[in-house]
Amino acid sequence: MTVTAIVYTDAGITTYDDLAAAKAARGTTWIRADDPTPDELAAVRDACGIHPLAVEDVENGVRPKTEEFDTHTFLLVTDARFRSGETTFDQELDTRPVGLFVGEDWLVSLTYDDVHAIGAVREAIDREDARILGRGPDFTAYRVLDRIVDDYFALLDDIEDRIEAIEGEIVDAARSDLLDDINDVRRELLAVRKLLWPTRDAVSGFARGDPPEVRAETEKYYRDVYDHVVQQVDLVETYRDLASSSRDIYLNALSQSTNEVMKRLTVVATIVLPLTFVVGVYGMNFETMPELGWPYAYHATLLGMGLLSLILVWYFREQDWL
Amino acid sequence: MTVTAIVYTDAGITTYDDLAAAKAARGTTWIRADDPTPDELAAVRDACGIHPLAVEDVENGVRPKTEEFDTHTFLLVTDARFRSGETTFDQELDTRPVGLFVGEDWLVSLTYDDVHAIGAVREAIDREDARILGRGPDFTAYRVLDRIVDDYFALLDDIEDRIEAIEGEIVDAARSDLLDDINDVRRELLAVRKLLWPTRDAVSGFARGDPPEVRAETEKYYRDVYDHVVQQVDLVETYRDLASSSRDIYLNALSQSTNEVMKRLTVVATIVLPLTFVVGVYGMNFETMPELGWPYAYHATLLGMGLLSLILVWYFREQDWL
Amino acid sequence: MTVTAIVYTDAGITTYDDLAAAKAARGTTWIRADDPTPDELAAVRDACGIHPLAVEDVENGVRPKTEEFDTHTFLLVTDARFRSGETTFDQELDTRPVGLFVGEDWLVSLTYDDVHAIGAVREAIDREDARILGRGPDFTAYRVLDRIVDDYFALLDDIEDRIEAIEGEIVDAARSDLLDDINDVRRELLAVRKLLWPTRDAVSGFARGDPPEVRAETEKYYRDVYDHVVQQVDLVETYRDLASSSRDIYLNALSQSTNEVMKRLTVVATIVLPLTFVVGVYGMNFETMPELGWPYAYHATLLGMGLLSLILVWYFREQDWL
Amino acid sequence: MTVTAIVYTDAGITTYDDLAAAKAARGTTWIRADDPTPDELAAVRDACGIHPLAVEDVENGVRPKTEEFDTHTFLLVTDARFRSGETTFDQELDTRPVGLFVGEDWLVSLTYDDVHAIGAVREAIDREDARILGRGPDFTAYRVLDRIVDDYFALLDDIEDRIEAIEGEIVDAARSDLLDDINDVRRELLAVRKLLWPTRDAVSGFARGDPPEVRAETEKYYRDVYDHVVQQVDLVETYRDLASSSRDIYLNALSQSTNEVMKRLTVVATIVLPLTFVVGVYGMNFETMPELGWPYAYHATLLGMGLLSLILVWYFREQDWL
Amino acid sequence: MTVTAIVYTDAGITTYDDLAAAKAARGTTWIRADDPTPDELAAVRDACGIHPLAVEDVENGVRPKTEEFDTHTFLLVTDARFRSGETTFDQELDTRPVGLFVGEDWLVSLTYDDVHAIGAVREAIDREDARILGRGPDFTAYRVLDRIVDDYFALLDDIEDRIEAIEGEIVDAARSDLLDDINDVRRELLAVRKLLWPTRDAVSGFARGDPPEVRAETEKYYRDVYDHVVQQVDLVETYRDLASSSRDIYLNALSQSTNEVMKRLTVVATIVLPLTFVVGVYGMNFETMPELGWPYAYHATLLGMGLLSLILVWYFREQDWL
Ligand SMILES: [Mg+2]
Ligand SMILES: [Mg+2]
Ligand SMILES: [Mg+2]
Ligand SMILES: [Mg+2]
Ligand SMILES: [Mg+2]
Ligand SMILES: [Mg+2]
Ligand SMILES: [Mg+2]
Ligand SMILES: [Mg+2]
Ligand SMILES: [Mg+2]
Ligand SMILES: [Mg+2]
Ligand SMILES: [Mg+2]
Ligand SMILES: [Mg+2]
Ligand SMILES: [Mg+2]
Ligand SMILES: [Mg+2]
Ligand SMILES: [Mg+2]
Ligand SMILES: [Mg+2]
Ligand SMILES: [Mg+2]
Ligand SMILES: [Mg+2]
Ligand SMILES: [Mg+2]
Ligand SMILES: [Mg+2]
Ligand SMILES: [Mg+2]
Ligand SMILES: [Mg+2]
Ligand SMILES: [Mg+2]
Ligand SMILES: [Mg+2]
Ligand SMILES: [Mg+2]
Ligand SMILES: [Mg+2]
Ligand SMILES: [Mg+2]
Ligand SMILES: [Mg+2]
Ligand SMILES: [Mg+2]
Ligand SMILES: [Mg+2]
Ligand SMILES: [Mg+2]
Repeated sequence: MTVTAIVYTDAGITTYDDLAAAKAARGTTWIRADDPTPDELAAVRDACGIHPLAVEDVENGVRPKTEEFDTHTFLLVTDARFRSGETTFDQELDTRPVGLFVGEDWLVSLTYDDVHAIGAVREAIDREDARILGRGPDFTAYRVLDRIVDDYFALLDDIEDRIEAIEGEIVDAARSDLLDDINDVRRELLAVRKLLWPTRDAVSGFARGDPPEVRAETEKYYRDVYDHVVQQVDLVETYRDLASSSRDIYLNALSQSTNEVMKRLTVVATIVLPLTFVVGVYGMNFETMPELGWPYAYHATLLGMGLLSLILVWYFREQDWL
Repeated sequence: MTVTAIVYTDAGITTYDDLAAAKAARGTTWIRADDPTPDELAAVRDACGIHPLAVEDVENGVRPKTEEFDTHTFLLVTDARFRSGETTFDQELDTRPVGLFVGEDWLVSLTYDDVHAIGAVREAIDREDARILGRGPDFTAYRVLDRIVDDYFALLDDIEDRIEAIEGEIVDAARSDLLDDINDVRRELLAVRKLLWPTRDAVSGFARGDPPEVRAETEKYYRDVYDHVVQQVDLVETYRDLASSSRDIYLNALSQSTNEVMKRLTVVATIVLPLTFVVGVYGMNFETMPELGWPYAYHATLLGMGLLSLILVWYFREQDWL
Repeated sequence: MTVTAIVYTDAGITTYDDLAAAKAARGTTWIRADDPTPDELAAVRDACGIHPLAVEDVENGVRPKTEEFDTHTFLLVTDARFRSGETTFDQELDTRPVGLFVGEDWLVSLTYDDVHAIGAVREAIDREDARILGRGPDFTAYRVLDRIVDDYFALLDDIEDRIEAIEGEIVDAARSDLLDDINDVRRELLAVRKLLWPTRDAVSGFARGDPPEVRAETEKYYRDVYDHVVQQVDLVETYRDLASSSRDIYLNALSQSTNEVMKRLTVVATIVLPLTFVVGVYGMNFETMPELGWPYAYHATLLGMGLLSLILVWYFREQDWL
Repeated sequence: MTVTAIVYTDAGITTYDDLAAAKAARGTTWIRADDPTPDELAAVRDACGIHPLAVEDVENGVRPKTEEFDTHTFLLVTDARFRSGETTFDQELDTRPVGLFVGEDWLVSLTYDDVHAIGAVREAIDREDARILGRGPDFTAYRVLDRIVDDYFALLDDIEDRIEAIEGEIVDAARSDLLDDINDVRRELLAVRKLLWPTRDAVSGFARGDPPEVRAETEKYYRDVYDHVVQQVDLVETYRDLASSSRDIYLNALSQSTNEVMKRLTVVATIVLPLTFVVGVYGMNFETMPELGWPYAYHATLLGMGLLSLILVWYFREQDWL
Repeated sequence: MTVTAIVYTDAGITTYDDLAAAKAARGTTWIRADDPTPDELAAVRDACGIHPLAVEDVENGVRPKTEEFDTHTFLLVTDARFRSGETTFDQELDTRPVGLFVGEDWLVSLTYDDVHAIGAVREAIDREDARILGRGPDFTAYRVLDRIVDDYFALLDDIEDRIEAIEGEIVDAARSDLLDDINDVRRELLAVRKLLWPTRDAVSGFARGDPPEVRAETEKYYRDVYDHVVQQVDLVETYRDLASSSRDIYLNALSQSTNEVMKRLTVVATIVLPLTFVVGVYGMNFETMPELGWPYAYHATLLGMGLLSLILVWYFREQDWL
C-alpha cells in the first residue's frame, strides 16, 4: 500500500513524493512499490513507462524471466521460503513474485507481498551503505537478487535436513507415514526445480551483460548469482536422486519386513505340523497297535518328537531359513 | 456453413458480401469461415491466395504449427476442452483445429467445428471494442489465440482437481478403479502435452516477431501467450510426475494391504497350530499315560494352552508381527 | 528385373529404350529400375552418374537418409507394412528400401522388391494425370514419398488397434499370452521408431529446400510430408507410452489376482484351524473331563463351532479381508 | 616389434628401411608400426613429427577421437572382437587401439597388439590391388577403418544371437543363470556403446571432410563408414531395449512361477483342512454322540468327505484358482 | 598460512619476499598461497589484481569453472580423494577447492587445505625439472591440473573395486548390508559426477585455447586433460549403470530367496496335511469301522501313508516344485 521514491547523490539520500521528479533527478533513483493501489501503480507506470503486461506478470506470479523494453529491462524473480501454512502446522513453500525494472539511472521494484530481500537492501542503504545505490540501479537490483537467491540455499538446506532425517528413520525403524514425508519432499523439490530453471535462464542474460542497463563492472556480480543458481539446480537434482533412492529403500524395507515375518511364521508351522501327524498316528483306534502297550512308549514318543523338532530347527538354521 | 467478412475503419464496422472487395477495402478485414461449403471455401481461397495444403491441414487437425506464405503467415492451433462424450457420461478431451491466416491488413479464420474463442472475439468486437480490429489483424489473431490458450488453463485445472481427488482417495481407502482413473489422467496429460509442445514452437516465432505481418507493438502480446504456454508445459510435466507418483503409492498401498491381511492370518494360524498339537498328544491311545489319570489334568491342560496363547501373542506383539 | 524410361513433354509420355537418350531428351525423365540385373544397373549408373556406394545403400537397406551428389540428390526411404510372414500366420513388419535419385530434369527410382508406392504413382501418371511428371522430378519424387509416408499411418493404425484390443482384454480377463502380445507391439514400435527418426531428418532437408533440385513451389509439398512424419514420430512415442502402461497394468493385475486367491484361501484355512483345535480338545483321553458326560454337550459343541465360524466370517468381512 | 615402410608409385610398391627417405619419396607412403620398440617408435616420431601425447593415447587406449596436428590428422579407433578369455572358456570383449596418422602423402599406423584390419589391408595391397595406396593415404586409412567398423557388425550379430537365444529360453523354461547371461549381454552392450559413440564423433569430422588431408573424392567413403557407425549405435540402443525387456520378462516369469506353485499348494491345503476337521469331530469322546452308533455312519462320512472334496475342487476350478 | 613467490629465469629459481617485485621480475612467477591469512591474501590480491568474488569462490568451494578477467584467467578445480573420516573408520570423499590464476607470465595458486598436487608440482620443479616453470604459467597450471585429474582415476578405480566386490558378494551370498554399500557407491558416484561435469566444461575452454594466456603449444596438454575428464565422465555413467544393475540383482536375489524358502516349506506342509487327515480318519470313534479289527491294518496304514508321501514327493519333483 506504499510507494516510496529515493534518490542517491553524493550529498546523500533524498526522498521524493513526485515520482516523475524523482526519476528525472540527477543520481540513482529507486522507486519501491509495495502492494500499490491502482492509483499508485498508475503513477509508477506513467513515470517509468512500464508495460501493463509486465505488471500483470508480477501480479500473476508467472515463471521467472527477463524481458527487454525500450527504456528498461524487466527482471521477474520469485522469493521463496517455507512459512507455516494458514490452516495447518506444516511448513509450506510460499512463493512471492518480485518485479525489478532496471532503467539507465533508475530502478522500480514491484511486489504484492512482503518480501524480505527488498526490506533488507533498503535497510542496508539507510543504515550502513548508501553507496549501494551509488553503484547504480543494476548493482542495487543485484543486491536484491543476491538476497533472494541466498534464501534458496536456506530452503535447500531445510530440504536436505529433512531428507537426512528420513534416511535416519529408514535405517532405525519403519514409520508408517515416512512415505508421506518422502513424497512431500519430492513434491517440494519439484516446485523448487520449476522455480530455479527459469531463474537460471533469466539471470544468465544479466551475467552475460546482455541488457544495456547492466554495466561491465556489475556483470561479475550477476555471474556470481548465476553460479549460485546453477549450483542450486545441481543440488535439487542430487536431492531428487536421494529422495527417490530413500523411497526405494523404504519400500524394499517394508516388503522385506513382511516377508521376514511370514517366513518365520511359516517355519513355526512347518515344525508343528509333522509333530501333529505323529500324535495323530497314536490316536488311531486300530485294535492291533503293539506300540500302544509298550511300557515307556508314551515317553519315548514325546522324546522322539522333541528330537525331531530339534533336527528340523537345526536343518532350517543350516539352510539359512531361520 | 457460413462465411462472413467484416472491415473495420474509423467509421466503424462494415459487413461485405464480396470477399475480394472486403479484402481490398481500406481498413482491417476479418474473413471468418465457419465450416465452409466447398464453394465458400473456394471463394475464400481465391480471394486470399490460401494454399490447399494449409486448408487440408486444418481439416485433418494436424499438429499446431506456423508456416509462412508469400502474402500471409498461417498459424494452426487447437482449441481443446473436456466435453461429455457422445456415448458415455465421461468427460472426453475434444480438440478442434483453428486455422488463422494473418495477412498485411486482413485475417482469415477457418474452423470446421464450433470454436468458442472465435465467437467470443467476434462478440467483443461487436459489443464492446471495435478497436480490437483497429489494432490490426495480428492483434485480432492474438486475441483468438489468447482465448484458446487461456482455456488450456481451465483444462489443466480440471486435471489438477482430479489428481488431487485421486490423492485424497488413496490416503482414505483403496477404491478398486482408482488405477483406471489415474491412467485416464495420464493419458489425457499425454494428449495435452502432445498439443502444447508444437503450440509452443508455433507461438515462439510470433513472439520473436519473425513473420512480417506481426508488428513490433504486437510482439509483446504474443510473448505473453508464449509465456503462458511455457508455463502450461511446465504444469503438464509436474502433473505427470504427480500422477506417476500417485500410481506408485496406490500400487504400493494395495500390495501392502494384501500383505497385511496375510500376515495377520498367518499369525492366527501359528497360534492355533501348537495348541492343536497339544490336544493331539492327549488324544493318543497309549496304555501308560500317567497324566490322563491325574484329577485336574484336563483343567491344567486348558489353562496351559491359554497361557501358551498369551505368550505367543505377546511375543508376536514384541516382534512387531501383529 | 526391368528398367523402364519414360519422358514427359507437352506432347505426352514417350517410352525410351536408350537410357542416356531418355535422360538427354527435353522434358522430365523417370528411369524406373525394379530389381535390376547387374547389366541393367550398370546402364542406369552410367547414364546418370550414380555412385556405387549409394546403390549399395539401397541394396543393404541402411537407415533412411539424404545425400547430395554433384548432379543429383539421393533420397533413401523405406517402404514398410505388415505382411503375413513366410513361415507363420503372424503379421510381420516388412521393410523395403527405395532409392530416389533426383536430378535437374530426371528421376531414377531404384528398388529391389515390389514397392506399392512406385507402381501407384506410375499408374497415376498413365491413367489420370501425366502432368505429375510435368511438375518436375522433385514433384514426382514427392508423390512416391507421400505414398510411402501415408502407408506409415496405416501401419500405426494397425498398431493402435492392437493396443486398444490389448487394453480391452486386460480389463476383461487376464489372457496368459497378453504379455507376449504387448512385447510384440513394443518391439514393432521400436522398429517403426528406428525407421521414422532418420526419415524425418532425411525429409527435413527437402522441406527446407536445401537440395538445388527441389524447386521453391515443391518445398511446400515436402513440408507437408515432413509434418506427417513428425506427427508419426509423436504417435509412436504416445503408443510406446500406452504399451508400457498396458504392460504395467497387466503385470499388476496378474500379481493382484494371485494375491487375491491366496488371501481367500488363507481365510478359509484360518476359519477351519481353530475349529480343528476345538474338536481336538474333546478328543483328549483324560479320565476326568466333565463335559464329555453332559447330555447335549456334543450338540452344544457343534453349535458353538458353527457360531465361531460365523463370527470369524463376519470379522473378516468387517476387516475387508474377504 | 616391427616397423615397415612401403611407398607406392606407378612403378609399384617399394620397401624402404630409412623412414625419413620413405616419407620424402614421391608416391604414397605407409609406415606400419606394429608394437614398436622405443627406438623404432622414436624413429617413426622423428620422421613424421608425431606428438608424444598422441602416442601415449594409443598406448593407453583412450576413447576414439580425431585430433588435427600441423602436418597430419590423428585418428584413434578401437578394434573390438570377442576372444576367448585367458583364464575362462567364456568369450570376452577384447579391444585394441589403432592409431592412424594421415599426412599429405603418407600414413602411419601404430598398434601395440595384433590388429586384423591392418594385416588384411596390407595383404589386399600386396596380393590384389596396389592402387589402394595409389588412391592416397586418406583412402588407405579408410580401408583400415572400414574393416574395423565392419567387424563391429560381427560383434553385434553375436550379441543379437545371444539375446535371441535368451529370449528362446525364457519362453521354454526358466534356467537359473539366465539372469547372469542377460547381465553379461547388458554389460557388453554398455561397453560397445561406450566405444561407438566417440567413434561416431571421430569419423563424422572425416565424413564432413574437415581434415585437409581428406580429399573430396574420399569423403563419400568416410560418409559410408559414418552411416555404418550410426546404424550400429541404433542397433546397440535397440539391443539394450531388448535385453532390458528380456530381463523384465524373465523376472516376471520367475515370480509368476513361484506364485503359481504356492497357489496350487495352498489349494491342496485348503481342501484337506476341512476334511481333517470332520474326522476330528468324530474322534471326540462325548458320551452321547448318536451318529457313532449308526450302522453305516463311517461309510457315509467317508462318502460325504469325498463329495466335499469334489465340490471344493469344482468351486476352485470355477473360480479359476486351480 | 604461507605465501611463497618464486621466479624462474634461465639462471634458475629465485625466491622473493615482495610479491609485487616477484610478479614484475623477468621470468615466470609462481605465487603459491596456501591457506593465507587475511593480510597475506590482501597482499596477493593487490599484487595481481584478483577479484574478491573469485577468492570467495575458492573459499566456498563452488562448482569448478573458468572465468576470464582483464589481466588473467581464473580456473577453479577441485582436488578429490577418499580420506578416512574424522569420526568413523569409513572412507569419505573429501573435496578441496584449488584456485589457479593464470596471468601472462605469472601464476597464483590459492588453496585453503593441503592439496597434494600443488606440493607435487613444486617438488618436481625443485628437484627435477625447473624448466616446468620455464614453459610458462599456463604449462605449470596444466601440471597441477593434470595431477588433480589423474587422482580422479584413482578415485574411480577405488569405486570400481568396490562395485566388483559387491558384485562378487551378490553371487556368493546375500549380506544384509550390501544394499547399504551399493547406496554408498551410488551416492559417491553422484558426488563425483557433480564434480566432473563442470570440470569438463572448465577445461574445455583451455583445450580450445580460448584464454589468451594459454599458448598454442600448451593447448595440446589441456586437450589431453580434457580427454581424461571426458573418459572419467564416461566411466561414472558406466559405474552408475553397474551399481543400479547390482542393486536390482540384489533385490531380486533377496526376494527370490524368501520365495524359495516359503515354497519349500509349503511343500513340506502339503505332504504332511493329507497324512494327518488319514490318521484322523482312523481316530474316529464310530462303532462300526471294520478296518480297525483287521490284523495288519495298522501296519498297512503306515505303509500306505509312506507310499503316499513318496508319490507326492515324486509329483512335486516332476512339477519342478521342489
Ligand atoms: Mg511462480
Ligand atoms: Mg549470493
Ligand atoms: Mg544439512
Ligand atoms: Mg504430509
Ligand atoms: Mg561466487
Ligand atoms: Mg556472493
Ligand atoms: Mg491435434
Ligand atoms: Mg492469456
Ligand atoms: Mg485446483
Ligand atoms: Mg475410465
Ligand atoms: Mg503475462
Ligand atoms: Mg494476459
Ligand atoms: Mg531399415
Ligand atoms: Mg501424405
Ligand atoms: Mg483405430
Ligand atoms: Mg507372438
Ligand atoms: Mg499437411
Ligand atoms: Mg497431403
Ligand atoms: Mg564397412
Ligand atoms: Mg562396407
Ligand atoms: Mg542373427
Ligand atoms: Mg557369466
Ligand atoms: Mg553405405
Ligand atoms: Mg559400404
Ligand atoms: Mg564442488
Ligand atoms: Mg568441500
Ligand atoms: Mg593426466
Ligand atoms: Mg580395478
Ligand atoms: Mg555405509
Ligand atoms: Mg591422452
Ligand atoms: Mg597424460
